[in-house]
Amino acid sequence: MFDSLISPKSVAVIGASHNPSKIGYVVLKNLATHGYRGEVYPVNPKGGEILGYRVYRDIGEIPPVDLSIITLPAELTVRVFEDVARKSKFIIPIAGGFGETGPEGKELENKILEIANRHGARVIGPNTVGIYIPRSGVNTALIVPERSRFPGDGKIAFITQSGALGLLTMDSFAMYGVGFSAFINLGNRVDVNENELLRYFGDDDHTQVVILYIESFKDGREFMRIAKEVSVRKPIVVLKAGRTARGGKAASLHTGALGGSDAVADGAFKQCGVIRAYDEVELVDYARALAYGKPFSGNRVAVVTSAGGVGVVTTDYIESDSRGVGLKMAELDEETKRIIREEVVPFASVENPVDMTAQASDDDYDGVLEALNDDPNVDAILVYALFQTPLISERLVDIIEKWHHRGKKPIVVGTIGSEFSMKMLGEFEKRGIPAYPSIERAVKALRVLHDRAHILGRLIE
Amino acid sequence: MFDSLISPKSVAVIGASHNPSKIGYVVLKNLATHGYRGEVYPVNPKGGEILGYRVYRDIGEIPPVDLSIITLPAELTVRVFEDVARKSKFIIPIAGGFGETGPEGKELENKILEIANRHGARVIGPNTVGIYIPRSGVNTALIVPERSRFPGDGKIAFITQSGALGLLTMDSFAMYGVGFSAFINLGNRVDVNENELLRYFGDDDHTQVVILYIESFKDGREFMRIAKEVSVRKPIVVLKAGRTARGGKAASLHTGALGGSDAVADGAFKQCGVIRAYDEVELVDYARALAYGKPFSGNRVAVVTSAGGVGVVTTDYIESDSRGVGLKMAELDEETKRIIREEVVPFASVENPVDMTAQASDDDYDGVLEALNDDPNVDAILVYALFQTPLISERLVDIIEKWHHRGKKPIVVGTIGSEFSMKMLGEFEKRGIPAYPSIERAVKALRVLHDRAHILGRLIE
Repeated sequence: MFDSLISPKSVAVIGASHNPSKIGYVVLKNLATHGYRGEVYPVNPKGGEILGYRVYRDIGEIPPVDLSIITLPAELTVRVFEDVARKSKFIIPIAGGFGETGPEGKELENKILEIANRHGARVIGPNTVGIYIPRSGVNTALIVPERSRFPGDGKIAFITQSGALGLLTMDSFAMYGVGFSAFINLGNRVDVNENELLRYFGDDDHTQVVILYIESFKDGREFMRIAKEVSVRKPIVVLKAGRTARGGKAASLHTGALGGSDAVADGAFKQCGVIRAYDEVELVDYARALAYGKPFSGNRVAVVTSAGGVGVVTTDYIESDSRGVGLKMAELDEETKRIIREEVVPFASVENPVDMTAQASDDDYDGVLEALNDDPNVDAILVYALFQTPLISERLVDIIEKWHHRGKKPIVVGTIGSEFSMKMLGEFEKRGIPAYPSIERAVKALRVLHDRAHILGRLIE
Repeated sequence: MFDSLISPKSVAVIGASHNPSKIGYVVLKNLATHGYRGEVYPVNPKGGEILGYRVYRDIGEIPPVDLSIITLPAELTVRVFEDVARKSKFIIPIAGGFGETGPEGKELENKILEIANRHGARVIGPNTVGIYIPRSGVNTALIVPERSRFPGDGKIAFITQSGALGLLTMDSFAMYGVGFSAFINLGNRVDVNENELLRYFGDDDHTQVVILYIESFKDGREFMRIAKEVSVRKPIVVLKAGRTARGGKAASLHTGALGGSDAVADGAFKQCGVIRAYDEVELVDYARALAYGKPFSGNRVAVVTSAGGVGVVTTDYIESDSRGVGLKMAELDEETKRIIREEVVPFASVENPVDMTAQASDDDYDGVLEALNDDPNVDAILVYALFQTPLISERLVDIIEKWHHRGKKPIVVGTIGSEFSMKMLGEFEKRGIPAYPSIERAVKALRVLHDRAHILGRLIE
């Protein structure tokens, strides 16, 4: 149903501009540089040519399109809206100055909705940064390209009520090569809302996890109904902002949200299998764990490290209920200990955490991961790939990849360091292995895989 | 007292090697490349020259030195120890194979301590990566330089029981330009311990904050006594690992630590003004806040953002007691609101968070920060420097720097994004402004500045 929005065969840009600082230029530039391959119809009464695209003087001149992006101010948007709606399956009016500004703006908003309904066009927004779909090259967002990054294609669909928070978040994760299947900013949400989109991405083959930033649900009950359905086959992570009284007030000023009690939301999320994130980092960290990792229902974690202190802090985070995730450190099988001690790394500490010390080699990791994979007392493995010691090479990524894909046990990777470690983080990402740049983030990702198994157990029973 | 260790006028490397993969080579290489300017005396029976340094065949040939680094295996270390002790104020035996391996190793350890005591030499280690002092260029740590970074000079002294955790942590923060005044790995801690070092760095003019990674205190009461004294003038952050039963067991296998109850430790830390970190990221994040930021005793925070959603999530984190830091969002003075609305940014939301939207310019930030600085209802400011929007430039760093230094209110900066934002994070760091790459980390840093004010209030009363 949203295929024409996600992969439009033709796009009109209403309010196309020659001025590089205008959104009417940026959208065209985005289409050109992000590899959009469909038809492009810039519309501007002045005509001419922009970025090699022929500019149409009047929307009447262009054929029907899948998607129209209106880059005009609010009043002009309303003025052209009927003509645009006649030609378009989807319309994205970018401008603010609608419902978020008060009753007058609200009226403008009602007007465009009425027009759209009449013509059977669907509206994303208004007051939105719009959408970014890496694989189709549609990108309506205005951010300065020299100072930010757009992510590549991936398995995470991102539905957000805050455009800026969404773009910033994608920017920060793009550095490690994290990709997205779609990014949609709901804006004032006069028409298309999170519920329809959640259902759509629930069935979308390109999407393995749906994440949402929401300040208020359009229809909470409906969301829960759909979420319960979708989360049987696909994990959902929600960052519900405005969870405190004061945060709720800030949200109401931001998107007009009226949130309910946070305890109620929490209970509802649990019931319908939604995993909760509390900030922009958790939102994407959890999505990556769920997109790449295997859920596990046991709670016994084996930790592999070459740095003893990292093993100790990890153990604390795994076991602690207060500052930690309340899982358990596995008691390794005697046979596992024997193998590690006698066949693999005689100098290692074979208790869990398995500490191979700075003498560890790639092959030592291989042997230890094999032994842990065979250990009936181990439900999941957290392995630290620390590239600072001399006997470790980039081959460690291949070894972990092998056990991630071939092994029975879920694996989460931690890596701590600067540029080189970040590059390796990108390498893990590329191969679909959940990897994290800090102890706490790695442990929390593990916990989410455990939660996911329990959600599935509950929903499927 | 530790001056000859931190800034030695002469260094002997016992076991100097031509083999680039040996620590006996790496230490010399480190001295050469980190700009050590004192005398260097490599010692190896083969003689010759390494990296341009003349190699002495026998330790008897060299004059007395401030520091000797022994890069030989345990048994050889013991064999040469008497000769080394005769010549040295400080000795760092790098090798493992001492007390951490069992009773026999313990005996070797006792032997070197006895020798050192007899000659009045002090020992760091054994079983240690040693020390790294950026400003004197002494660096005994073996990590692969192509895959890691050593930080530059800075204001944080880092005392750690785990060498690897320490090096990894410094590596990851070096990426943002975070510097350290000293790094000392206690290793098996036969002689020099955290208490003496804490006292020393408490008086060290180069150090503004002391951070410790500790699995077990050598003498907890003594630590608390010194910490209470030092923390009156200098903040102390401790990562006490092994805080859970299982973590304690892991610690005992790692460094032979025998930890006590975590609740007792927590109470003791509070009493003596120690700020607690739970992982490697908090440890350095908190240190940076405390090194650069102003403590504040009120609890009313103003938040400035150009991204509405970021303001909402921040509000939740500031106000929440469960997932948050339990501070308050300031109720802005009416005059502040008037100034912001009428004189600075008419399009901004003047409630707190102050949301200037993507239209914000550098000057808008300037005006808003000025107004908030003058607001009697505001105790601290969290400002998001988001460089993705078109009207923001690098000048924003100058503006925030001005208010950070000139203004009365403490400022913490948040910035979210990829390479460019990371570069700006480095720029803030360079100017001594506490800046963080995520919402949660920025809010937690603020909280630590608040805690610090209360610690000072309690200790000084």
